[in-house]
Amino acid sequence: MSDKPFSTLDDLDADDVQLLDTTLRDGEQAPGISLTADQKATVARKLDDADVDFVEAGSACTSAGERETIRRVTSLDLDATVTSFCRGVRRDVDLALDCDVDGINLVVPASDRHIEGKVGSSREEVVETTRDLVAYAKSEGLWVEVIGEDGSRADFDYLEELAEASFEAGADRFCFADTVGHASPGEVHEGVSRVGQFGPVSVHTHDDLGLAVTNALAGIDAGADLVHATVNGIGERAGNVALEEVAVALWHCYDVDSADTEALYDLATTVADVTNVPLPPNKAVSGENAFAHESGIHTDGTLKDERMYEPYSPEAVGRERRLVLGKHAGRAGVKAALAEHDVEVSDDELADVVQRVKDLGERGKRVTDADLLAIAEDVQGREGAERRVEVLDLTAASGGGTPTASVRIRVDDEERTAAGTGSGPVDAAMAAVRDALGDVNFHLGSYHVDAITGGTDAVVNVEVEVTRGDRTVTVSASDSDITSASVTAVVDALDRLLPARDDEGEEEVAAPAGA
Amino acid sequence: MSDKPFSTLDDLDADDVQLLDTTLRDGEQAPGISLTADQKATVARKLDDADVDFVEAGSACTSAGERETIRRVTSLDLDATVTSFCRGVRRDVDLALDCDVDGINLVVPASDRHIEGKVGSSREEVVETTRDLVAYAKSEGLWVEVIGEDGSRADFDYLEELAEASFEAGADRFCFADTVGHASPGEVHEGVSRVGQFGPVSVHTHDDLGLAVTNALAGIDAGADLVHATVNGIGERAGNVALEEVAVALWHCYDVDSADTEALYDLATTVADVTNVPLPPNKAVSGENAFAHESGIHTDGTLKDERMYEPYSPEAVGRERRLVLGKHAGRAGVKAALAEHDVEVSDDELADVVQRVKDLGERGKRVTDADLLAIAEDVQGREGAERRVEVLDLTAASGGGTPTASVRIRVDDEERTAAGTGSGPVDAAMAAVRDALGDVNFHLGSYHVDAITGGTDAVVNVEVEVTRGDRTVTVSASDSDITSASVTAVVDALDRLLPARDDEGEEEVAAPAGA
Repeated sequence: MSDKPFSTLDDLDADDVQLLDTTLRDGEQAPGISLTADQKATVARKLDDADVDFVEAGSACTSAGERETIRRVTSLDLDATVTSFCRGVRRDVDLALDCDVDGINLVVPASDRHIEGKVGSSREEVVETTRDLVAYAKSEGLWVEVIGEDGSRADFDYLEELAEASFEAGADRFCFADTVGHASPGEVHEGVSRVGQFGPVSVHTHDDLGLAVTNALAGIDAGADLVHATVNGIGERAGNVALEEVAVALWHCYDVDSADTEALYDLATTVADVTNVPLPPNKAVSGENAFAHESGIHTDGTLKDERMYEPYSPEAVGRERRLVLGKHAGRAGVKAALAEHDVEVSDDELADVVQRVKDLGERGKRVTDADLLAIAEDVQGREGAERRVEVLDLTAASGGGTPTASVRIRVDDEERTAAGTGSGPVDAAMAAVRDALGDVNFHLGSYHVDAITGGTDAVVNVEVEVTRGDRTVTVSASDSDITSASVTAVVDALDRLLPARDDEGEEEVAAPAGA
Repeated sequence: MSDKPFSTLDDLDADDVQLLDTTLRDGEQAPGISLTADQKATVARKLDDADVDFVEAGSACTSAGERETIRRVTSLDLDATVTSFCRGVRRDVDLALDCDVDGINLVVPASDRHIEGKVGSSREEVVETTRDLVAYAKSEGLWVEVIGEDGSRADFDYLEELAEASFEAGADRFCFADTVGHASPGEVHEGVSRVGQFGPVSVHTHDDLGLAVTNALAGIDAGADLVHATVNGIGERAGNVALEEVAVALWHCYDVDSADTEALYDLATTVADVTNVPLPPNKAVSGENAFAHESGIHTDGTLKDERMYEPYSPEAVGRERRLVLGKHAGRAGVKAALAEHDVEVSDDELADVVQRVKDLGERGKRVTDADLLAIAEDVQGREGAERRVEVLDLTAASGGGTPTASVRIRVDDEERTAAGTGSGPVDAAMAAVRDALGDVNFHLGSYHVDAITGGTDAVVNVEVEVTRGDRTVTVSASDSDITSASVTAVVDALDRLLPARDDEGEEEVAAPAGA
């Protein structure tokens, strides 16, 4: 095995590492994921915006529908080289050519397990087939990368033979693939070093051992200059190496630019949306909490020096920092959060507010803006401040026919009743609320319901972000009735957003046009 | 920098690496997580079952409630050494002693940013305080680990001084902490090597760069023999290194036992439940898809040889393999899935079923058991097989008062109407369904609703697992009305579970007692 440490990465040139994104092929192979042509085009454009050099758009042999989506990507005229995955059969190469791709990722079995057990072939046959197909694809003008499938479990002597034959036949590069996420960094280092004697090498890693990024770096360290990756690390089993993690690690630790890091967050959220696979809160780079600070020590430190508890600025990956409140809240964080809502408190009041925020957090609750403001009002004896908007009654009927709901809402001294219909009971109730409120315009910026697991009687947690003019609040509500929780959250948010009644310049709330 | 490669890990003795779990302290500091005393006790017991050697139970200084939860853990009489996190103040050590812990993790600032910017102290003062507190804690009989906070951004000369002083004062070990997830593996290797000159070293890593596991291994490679980790990698920002990933990587790549790997899946799901942070589908070791195979190539290979596309067996971490169907399905996988439901098909029929499974998957749908069986019936011309149970009408009213629902259901030739109440409209509808079905006993094994984001008119996807006798089916239904989707899914599942009417030994469906 090689004795090179990771630290030799310091010697790499800044232009030396490129990325091949395989979100649209290996990523899409994850159970339950299927992207439409439009969705693939959207992701491909964002990859191009992020300066990713290679985009594997799909696997042309899969189906006519898949070929249509690949054609859609090749027709975008991206800066990136667009490729199709091909098995080691001529038909697959022809199908890829039909899709107008710039190149192919030609996968051939490399381990005996795959050569004999899966394909029922022999080492010699695989070498011959590879030579033929590479020569054919090159004669058609394609960029050709040969992937030795399950390379990390292959006999490395044979892997050398396969790589040498590929390059002799004209291949542009050979990919060392840890297909099943089996390898240690030392094994990747050795494998890449050995096939790298014959030409340019790529590295393809999976995260079954949590080593996907490590192994990509080990491959680079051994001379690979192209890394296969997927956005958000989606893919077979535990997924592929996450493109955004490789790009940020290369930039932060080794000053190597492989993509435009500022475009990464937009890319990650786009892929989460189209795949319907939510980002875990603790996902590096793109998770909701990656730049969030809750604990008192961390919030206090961050307010003194933004970089106190961050390895790099959130702006570097296109994001913003968040300070959140909960069980571990401290004085500095609570004070800063109150100031954002123009609430000033004395030192004694602050101590009380902090204690109550911690109490609420200790009950396992996210502490929202509305919670904080309610606590502050209570501590300052302002709890009598009359609500301006309140739900008096709600009825929702659904199941068959047209989902219908009615609400009775008090706005200042006036009771208003309105009904609405919608696509379901929550949507109908929201229509009724909007009608009852007349021209109290508001924008429901986000509506989120946590996944419900357990039984049908589980408590449902709804969190909304509501904007009115230049003010935004987040409010959550929990109820075993999803309709009640949704209406309560939105109305509570509006109550917070309307100015107090005795404020100068009190805003009139107009009755609905039809009332 | 050191020139040792990762591969030297091969030389480690099997007993050399231990784990310190900090799920209950650093993990719980993640925004929105708060564990009760009972929940901490549950997790601590599972950690002990998994042979984890150290359990950091919390931070005694946080609150009286937190001290109660720590006491709850120390009272369990675990095999593990139970510790509390302490800041560098004597009061924290005293509070930890009050909780009867076996030891403390004493955190003192190590980087100038933290020493001067956060604490407003000096390097000399920190060394003096550390000496005093270590001596005090040792005199009270505690196991003492000193954590140099932000050690990876510290002047390593100073870090050596701090470590040396800690050991001189009697500390049992010193922890090299990459507090903000900033370090490259080379930096961790150097830092651990340097402080390791003076005594036993631990390594504490975060995942902001996707390098948490790598850096833990780099630390071990440099001589660390205790790794701080959290279950599922929960923790500040992008989280800590995941305990299950370190344990599996050490076992699979280096034959080092640091925990009982077969207990890891149970541990991971327990922590996901109590923290209410779901496991990402592509999470290494514990994600839903970590041992799932959908694509035709992978399923076919797996059916020929279980290890074809897996680095290690799912049983090694206490799990089972799953073959799932979707867009990338192939013949072998579909045939195997049909066989599980005792459905035999001809080669031509199989080709049809595969095509239709792929079509359904291409529309972005998970293909459930019910979908597969419906397709097979259709292909085999059995689609006339009459449904035994079907919803004719559903009405649900909720919002205020008692959530109420009624259903009209056809069971064989009989129409039945029943009403029910519940904690919300779905729960009420389910009560009505159960009442209408009489003694068609069934067990709703799981009820899951995907998180809803977007607007209030979003389509809601409900997936249920229903068991009757020894048969279980999964069925999903989508509707913008959550009540309709839930009832449809459960009734469709029951229809699948009842034997066909013309089967021998047809099962009678008894009318409800009160009907």
